[in-house]
Amino acid sequence: MRRMINFKVVARTLGILLLIEGVAMLTALLISLIYGESDLQAFGIASLVTMGTGGLTYLATKNASFDIGKREGFIIVSLVWVVFSFFGALPYTLSEAIPNFTDAFFETMSGFTTTGSSVLNNIEELPHGILFWRSLTQWLGGMGIIVLSLAILPVFGIGGMQLFVAEVPGPTPDKLNPRIRQTAMSLWGIYMIFTVLETILLKLGGMTLFDAINHSFTTMATGGYSTKQASVAHYDSAYIHYVVIIFMFLAGTNFSLSYWGLKGQLNKVYKNEEFRAYSFFIIAFTLIITVGLYFSNWGGVERSFRDSLFQVVSIITTTGYATADYLVWPPFLAAIIFLLFFFGGSAGSTGGGIKIVRIVLLLKNSYFELRRLIHPNAIIPVRYNKRSVSDQIITNILAFFMFYIIVFVLSVLIFTIIEPDIKTSVGAVATSLGNIGPGFGKVGPVENFCNVHPFGKWFLSFLMLLGRLELFTVLVLFSPAFWKK
Amino acid sequence: MRRMINFKVVARTLGILLLIEGVAMLTALLISLIYGESDLQAFGIASLVTMGTGGLTYLATKNASFDIGKREGFIIVSLVWVVFSFFGALPYTLSEAIPNFTDAFFETMSGFTTTGSSVLNNIEELPHGILFWRSLTQWLGGMGIIVLSLAILPVFGIGGMQLFVAEVPGPTPDKLNPRIRQTAMSLWGIYMIFTVLETILLKLGGMTLFDAINHSFTTMATGGYSTKQASVAHYDSAYIHYVVIIFMFLAGTNFSLSYWGLKGQLNKVYKNEEFRAYSFFIIAFTLIITVGLYFSNWGGVERSFRDSLFQVVSIITTTGYATADYLVWPPFLAAIIFLLFFFGGSAGSTGGGIKIVRIVLLLKNSYFELRRLIHPNAIIPVRYNKRSVSDQIITNILAFFMFYIIVFVLSVLIFTIIEPDIKTSVGAVATSLGNIGPGFGKVGPVENFCNVHPFGKWFLSFLMLLGRLELFTVLVLFSPAFWKK
Repeated sequence: MRRMINFKVVARTLGILLLIEGVAMLTALLISLIYGESDLQAFGIASLVTMGTGGLTYLATKNASFDIGKREGFIIVSLVWVVFSFFGALPYTLSEAIPNFTDAFFETMSGFTTTGSSVLNNIEELPHGILFWRSLTQWLGGMGIIVLSLAILPVFGIGGMQLFVAEVPGPTPDKLNPRIRQTAMSLWGIYMIFTVLETILLKLGGMTLFDAINHSFTTMATGGYSTKQASVAHYDSAYIHYVVIIFMFLAGTNFSLSYWGLKGQLNKVYKNEEFRAYSFFIIAFTLIITVGLYFSNWGGVERSFRDSLFQVVSIITTTGYATADYLVWPPFLAAIIFLLFFFGGSAGSTGGGIKIVRIVLLLKNSYFELRRLIHPNAIIPVRYNKRSVSDQIITNILAFFMFYIIVFVLSVLIFTIIEPDIKTSVGAVATSLGNIGPGFGKVGPVENFCNVHPFGKWFLSFLMLLGRLELFTVLVLFSPAFWKK
Repeated sequence: MRRMINFKVVARTLGILLLIEGVAMLTALLISLIYGESDLQAFGIASLVTMGTGGLTYLATKNASFDIGKREGFIIVSLVWVVFSFFGALPYTLSEAIPNFTDAFFETMSGFTTTGSSVLNNIEELPHGILFWRSLTQWLGGMGIIVLSLAILPVFGIGGMQLFVAEVPGPTPDKLNPRIRQTAMSLWGIYMIFTVLETILLKLGGMTLFDAINHSFTTMATGGYSTKQASVAHYDSAYIHYVVIIFMFLAGTNFSLSYWGLKGQLNKVYKNEEFRAYSFFIIAFTLIITVGLYFSNWGGVERSFRDSLFQVVSIITTTGYATADYLVWPPFLAAIIFLLFFFGGSAGSTGGGIKIVRIVLLLKNSYFELRRLIHPNAIIPVRYNKRSVSDQIITNILAFFMFYIIVFVLSVLIFTIIEPDIKTSVGAVATSLGNIGPGFGKVGPVENFCNVHPFGKWFLSFLMLLGRLELFTVLVLFSPAFWKK
């Protein structure tokens, strides 16, 4: 009945994308050239291998019909992150910045998925090219996510993403290609504007241009890689902290809202239910933690407020920068931070996790179920942005949430086999699945993932991919129905 | 539009039920009389106070119209457990077995909700009447739950309980009263038969008659109170362990299935989807843990198997007896036990927790959502026992699951304020909400709840009630819509 899966166009698309990755490596090579450092050769070889593989694949699939359906879409999206991470790991291994391939793959997957978990203990000793490549993987990952969440996932019908289609700039989503192109261009423009703006502001705050660019890249991607071992805590500057907070907040906001905001249609922003909930959660949790920190003698009011706000925004947007170690906070406050691991940014942002819109709809549906119990014959639809949401979308979001919980629980179980400390297991799994970065226990914000068992690194890499692609995109590939003719 | 809530009939019903509780106390008084112990006076006074209050309330509401609607039902069901626990705590405080009222209330609520968490450090020193009363609260709680889950909740429309209505013996559920009476009588009969049978088998295994009766009471209620400080581990007898396992299994099975089974209709049992899943989960988790224990030198094959099976059945049915301390098991195995905290018995059993049928339907719906992604235009209904389940029931079950998670997470947050150890907080909350008994950390299977902060004891008591009444019954009372005219 159904046509065969068009593997040729899958390969061809991946070939084109690999060519792009190879070109991206050349920009890192340029940095090596500028600083005259030893990683030049690594980037040269890596770029050649990547572009070579991409080019050959492209040429070998010349006769492919350009017929991309949903199923090809699922396969391409799932594969591109894996393929990019394999080739993207080359500069690390070739330059011996990260000699071990498992570690290098973990670092690259953590980059492209904008997670930000790292195996590096010696960040400040690494050559500039390598650090730039590390930040660039996140920035490119962020670009990929914007297209994915605002143009591709709504067409796939994943997890209620259809809800935002009407609000996204660009034509209606009947054909994949024109939509992707036009939406991508509009929103990438905003992504770039914000990146440049943050770079300027960080530079003005005393960062070197290099550090400012890198931090802007990883802020806008909600990635959280830093060029400093101590993350943003390295900079003892309230100005820098607040600048980073503002741009993390923007990166965790739906980019189509920023688009409308910049076009002067601020009422579209204010009236957006997800934006209001996102802002509300940040304010509420920041206030609670501020009070908690202040009364546990963490510091003055401003310091307590700033550290609370920074950590809350960093975790809820799934960026993962740190200016304070929440593991040394009172357990109640650390527990709030852990709770935030299951929120995530807005849909259509670069943030990962469950996403605010889903949390809002889940809470609303549960509350409405109580009302339905009292009035069993009344029809009480859940509304979102004043429109009623179909049962189908609610069921889909609830299924997403269930999958998230199931994957989380089973993964923790599996992880306990290699990691006896349950806090570490829970933290590592939650942070990977939510694309956040730091975890709990031995993988807290002042630690890193270098001591995790190799199996654990591959496993967490898989979880990063799963979380980044909203679970369904990857899980659907494991469903027999997907492959049936 | 709606009529006023008929508070008089609420009070009158509670009055009648208090009279019954007072009479139940007299059976404990009888035990005191037989053993000639000092708690005789306590039971006399407690019974008089309870029956007096019940009787006076009954007389004062003579002119109440016997008009019980859904809303009166919700209020009665929520209040009866609270009222019973207040009066049921009297024998403990009056006899000074548990002098502190907070502790006594906790122990009683833990009894009536068939949870089994205890504050007692000196169980074997207590008079027989008190121990009997403690077991009796669970046994009575179990009777209440059978009626609640098979006759009342389906009428309320809570959490997919409508699904079992067709299978329950008795008339269709249009009128609350004749249904409750007839269903209750049939199923209580089975409850009693099993209780007597287990008593005989335990007595044959070498228990005293008193211990056999008490353990049968608390097995059939999936309560888990023991007359021994060391729980069932006190008895170093494989025979006793296996007898208890069998009856825990029966207590965690839908009592209407047992009804059909005893009537010879075994195919109704075998073909029941929940029963199959319940059996499957027990077998699968037991095998995994057996292998794990055996290879970590826990003991021989039989010992590893028996301890695995006992703990798995005890936790999944939410009984909470212990023959081994899972806290000293390898973390992977302890993590599996923790996972089982979120399963629960079958619907229509005396077990608490989320319930197997919900787990099955949640898993099915999530898997089907993947298929719906691939075939967006196909209608793919979730089926249960070969009948398709309406979207409404699925949404309701998913809302239940969400509430369970929300309540769990918020409760852990609140609990961390008084308990810095996160494992203890998580364990205490999960075990209370699931009506299990033992937890993790400082409230593990060989510990108890005596050192929990008084606020924590009241809070956990509330969670036991919430979990026992399937969340909605209690939460609906907090909804403004409930009280609106």
